Amino acid sequence: MTKNLKVEFLPFETAVHVPAGTTLLEAVKKAGLPLKAGCGGKGTCGDCVVQVRAGRARSRPSAALPDELARQGYVLACETEVLDRLTVELPQFQEISIKSLLDLRFLEENKDNLSGVFEVRPLVARVDLALPPPSVDDHVSDLERVRRAISKTAGIKEAAVEYAVLKKLAAAVRDQDGRIHAVLLDGRRGWTILDIEPRRAQRRICGLACDIGTTTVALYLVDLETGEILSAASSYNQQLKCGEDVISRIDYARMPARLEELRSLVSSTVSHLIDQASRAAGVSAADIYYGSFAGNTTMTHLFLGLPPRYIREEPYVPTVREVPRLAARELGLSLNPEARIQFAPAVGSYVGGDITAGLLATPILRDPDTVSLFIDAGTNGELVVGNRDWLVACACSAGPAFEGGGMKCGMPAGDGAIETLEIGPDGAVRYQVIGGGRPRGLCGSGLVDLLAELLIHGHIDKSGKLHESTLGSRMIRDDNGPAFLIEEGANCHWGKDLVITERDIANLVRTKGAIFSACSVLLKNVGLTFDQIGAFYIAGGFGQHLGIESAIRIGLLPDLPRDKFHYLGNTSLCGATLILLSGRNEEMVNEIARKTTYVELNTEPGYMHEYTGALFLPHTDIGLFPTVKKLLAP
Amino acid sequence: MTKNLKVEFLPFETAVHVPAGTTLLEAVKKAGLPLKAGCGGKGTCGDCVVQVRAGRARSRPSAALPDELARQGYVLACETEVLDRLTVELPQFQEISIKSLLDLRFLEENKDNLSGVFEVRPLVARVDLALPPPSVDDHVSDLERVRRAISKTAGIKEAAVEYAVLKKLAAAVRDQDGRIHAVLLDGRRGWTILDIEPRRAQRRICGLACDIGTTTVALYLVDLETGEILSAASSYNQQLKCGEDVISRIDYARMPARLEELRSLVSSTVSHLIDQASRAAGVSAADIYYGSFAGNTTMTHLFLGLPPRYIREEPYVPTVREVPRLAARELGLSLNPEARIQFAPAVGSYVGGDITAGLLATPILRDPDTVSLFIDAGTNGELVVGNRDWLVACACSAGPAFEGGGMKCGMPAGDGAIETLEIGPDGAVRYQVIGGGRPRGLCGSGLVDLLAELLIHGHIDKSGKLHESTLGSRMIRDDNGPAFLIEEGANCHWGKDLVITERDIANLVRTKGAIFSACSVLLKNVGLTFDQIGAFYIAGGFGQHLGIESAIRIGLLPDLPRDKFHYLGNTSLCGATLILLSGRNEEMVNEIARKTTYVELNTEPGYMHEYTGALFLPHTDIGLFPTVKKLLAP
Repeated sequence: MTKNLKVEFLPFETAVHVPAGTTLLEAVKKAGLPLKAGCGGKGTCGDCVVQVRAGRARSRPSAALPDELARQGYVLACETEVLDRLTVELPQFQEISIKSLLDLRFLEENKDNLSGVFEVRPLVARVDLALPPPSVDDHVSDLERVRRAISKTAGIKEAAVEYAVLKKLAAAVRDQDGRIHAVLLDGRRGWTILDIEPRRAQRRICGLACDIGTTTVALYLVDLETGEILSAASSYNQQLKCGEDVISRIDYARMPARLEELRSLVSSTVSHLIDQASRAAGVSAADIYYGSFAGNTTMTHLFLGLPPRYIREEPYVPTVREVPRLAARELGLSLNPEARIQFAPAVGSYVGGDITAGLLATPILRDPDTVSLFIDAGTNGELVVGNRDWLVACACSAGPAFEGGGMKCGMPAGDGAIETLEIGPDGAVRYQVIGGGRPRGLCGSGLVDLLAELLIHGHIDKSGKLHESTLGSRMIRDDNGPAFLIEEGANCHWGKDLVITERDIANLVRTKGAIFSACSVLLKNVGLTFDQIGAFYIAGGFGQHLGIESAIRIGLLPDLPRDKFHYLGNTSLCGATLILLSGRNEEMVNEIARKTTYVELNTEPGYMHEYTGALFLPHTDIGLFPTVKKLLAP
Repeated sequence: MTKNLKVEFLPFETAVHVPAGTTLLEAVKKAGLPLKAGCGGKGTCGDCVVQVRAGRARSRPSAALPDELARQGYVLACETEVLDRLTVELPQFQEISIKSLLDLRFLEENKDNLSGVFEVRPLVARVDLALPPPSVDDHVSDLERVRRAISKTAGIKEAAVEYAVLKKLAAAVRDQDGRIHAVLLDGRRGWTILDIEPRRAQRRICGLACDIGTTTVALYLVDLETGEILSAASSYNQQLKCGEDVISRIDYARMPARLEELRSLVSSTVSHLIDQASRAAGVSAADIYYGSFAGNTTMTHLFLGLPPRYIREEPYVPTVREVPRLAARELGLSLNPEARIQFAPAVGSYVGGDITAGLLATPILRDPDTVSLFIDAGTNGELVVGNRDWLVACACSAGPAFEGGGMKCGMPAGDGAIETLEIGPDGAVRYQVIGGGRPRGLCGSGLVDLLAELLIHGHIDKSGKLHESTLGSRMIRDDNGPAFLIEEGANCHWGKDLVITERDIANLVRTKGAIFSACSVLLKNVGLTFDQIGAFYIAGGFGQHLGIESAIRIGLLPDLPRDKFHYLGNTSLCGATLILLSGRNEEMVNEIARKTTYVELNTEPGYMHEYTGALFLPHTDIGLFPTVKKLLAP
């Protein structure tokens, strides 16, 4: 019997055991990991690039792998045999860098464009204390001495105390002759001493804002005293290997061991990012005392290890909407063990904390006269219409296309992603790549531009079919059928052609159709029409530069005056940051969750009709899009 | 090289590795365990009886070991060689059964003799709920549904919730169609849901009251709904092997690993007792939701793993006096993980929670007119004088003699202990054994009786020396010098003579002297004399039947009208039970701790003089003991 060899895959921390001679592609499949392989393992498409990090493997040379990549240790998984225990990185799932849509200046300059408040008044604060030495006449306990000083310095009486603090107290108060920092939490039920440290070096008190998306996870590390964003990090959610959308993850989680697997995968994703962001900022994880998390209801349940099955069974009941504040140690997160973790509250099973946090980051509640529409086009699309006095929300299953998921050349909005694109009159494709350099793929905004340009230039018809006649050499055909060549492999990072297939186009059309028809139905439900909406706030993982014009051209957004539209990026992360920085925002986001009414689209009459009508470019009723109609007129 | 064999000692859970052929006595010494061996290992005294529970050993027969014991697997450690991996029980340290001084009737009948209140209103309560099923029109989260029902049924709004409850919530609310129990805690800062279970079988909600003594640990398992004491358990504190008194344990704990060892030993002691009490009562540990602990300040620090060193370094500062309420999971205790653990508060480093709890269990605070004196003669002696309006306390180092520690035939007040004793005019010794049967040793009350009888019958002089002339065959002599024969080995459980040596007598005299002189100095400090004290409440591990007359005869208690004295037994355990049963008592015990003033005896003028005077039987100034003087008159 052959001895099986262990192959470990990064960044998933998944391993399989396979006999020597197995190809890496087979090993990847056995591990259930979502590595693309367009040609099905023939060594021709070059999709399945991986990097061998440790161990010995044998690769056949392949024309589909550029020399430059080969020199860096990249191989094609389908052409490589396992000879030894291996560690292999799947670069398609490497950590991606988020482009900081948000920094403090941005928030400060836009403070009138927030429903939340912009202030640096977090619930965690540091006080520096100098304790008088104990004596025979003043021999109260160490804890009372600290409490007395806190009361005198900060006016806080009766602060509760964590067990971990008690354990270090005797040493901490004596180390520097009574000079200590105390880290205090302003909890809902009073103050708590989270930490006591001897005052030696200068220390920061930091916090974490984190958006847990179905596809990507992104976080900021923030100095809680200045409000400065010290570093940012993001990556794919490692849960991806268990399903691309929330429904498939809920199904996957039905068995307790698999629920635990999902919990552990997202926890590991977040821990890696914390580690990365801490190192980048030169901050110790022990100095992070607060985490503000926002995610949809399913992601929040999975993060907490709560069985999500009732979220998808009628009547769609989550276990919890307002998660109690937990300690990092309870969640096994690599922060200060006593750090408090707060989740943005959910409205219901399909409108989660990412949306309530997102609403904080838009001015929707600020203006009593204007009714606004908020659209978050993530893997799940959520929409909220309303103003300061009322809010009505709905959700639709949009799919991960705009976050780059399920697309041949899609990717999140990170380094190497094409974020804007135009097709010249000469047929040349011009684009801009995040971070410069050769493109690796297209993020959402690039895909929206591409679809609009193909439509306007007559390269696709209104059903999304490619026009062979107008495309010339840009029209190619592979195992996946007809495709449009965006850029030749020689000019691309991975050495293989960037293309969009008809299947990809159909995927994008379904996604935009789901969102547009949800908008229509939601407005009908509240008795309004598009032109009565004063502002459209668009959020989601498109990338920094979603072209509003392009989005209207493909029928994702309605054809209205362009200045009504505002693309805001990752509002969930921005909202989580606002909550991190201010206890008032935490109260406000709970208020938002409580006042929002949820409408179930599936039981709304006319939804299927609207959806079917939206499965064209821009729409089956071209009259709804007069400016696009004019452009398309022959 | 010889292979070392593992020898494990029960109940300590300590193991050593020794070469084959080593005697068990050597192995015990290597393990640092406190096994008595009067003859120093010659096989003659029969002290070092142990029981081989598993494994193979070779024993030489010995006249010092009765056949009956040999048949039960007992051996003499000094005469037994290790041949194999062994498990050995040290019977001197077997779990001992506490005689229940306390049951509910006792408390109820004596409710006028408590400073605390007698009521069954614990901070943990169960409510039975029937949740309406969720529907499309009523799809709030599971948690909100539970909260709504709690609010409706119990009028409790906004109950906080534990993470562990969230994790089981979805399943629990669906298991019996919404019929659940909720276990709620009335915390200082509001209510918390500690547990949710589907309502199936009848369940009890239980609590634990525990006295953590330096020498012995005792606990009650209590039904929190009826107040019934379901079972009791007690044993030696396993920390004994690291030192007999608090000072030696504080010294031992200076290194972090040894502090952790002490923490783990007492935790293991308590866990064993919980296990034993739960099995006896047929209760699952998961049904125990509250633990009320009382111990001296050092024991409390060690239980929590807090470094105790500053307790014994001037100015004697503990880390904490009022320990915050902790969860069982934080302490690793085998109760429901969310059970709350409350410690009785300390007055200071040398007057701990055992005393404040003890004061609850006496009527000292009840009467505004009478000034009472409370004496707890444990390994540390603590004294409190006062009434409802004021309390002054002091502490002295008494030693474990009255708990049977450090005495050749001493033992705690458990099965087999002689608890009362008299010497007839014929010189015959008559005694009563707890639980009946042959005696194993003497507990505190037996020792006090013995000392008084020896004195009154002229067998010892006022310095504690044995009078060879009057004793006849009762006078024996062994390696430890002269001794009085209480009972012959043939009539004793362990088959060896029960004796009291002159050294033991000197030990008892020092102990009673420390307590009496502390009383004198404390009263002088507050400007009172003995006859101004209305009542004397005496606590401690003497056993159920401390003879007040005997205690006066040996000069432990002052010579006053006998009806002023009340022996109350383990008041620490009784007070812990009162706290367990009532939130009002928890408030009152904190009040007691705050209002008590501590007096440091060592800096009191005249203390050494008083102590030296008390080192005689009954006292160097016989005029202080007129009734004893009359008896001793020739």
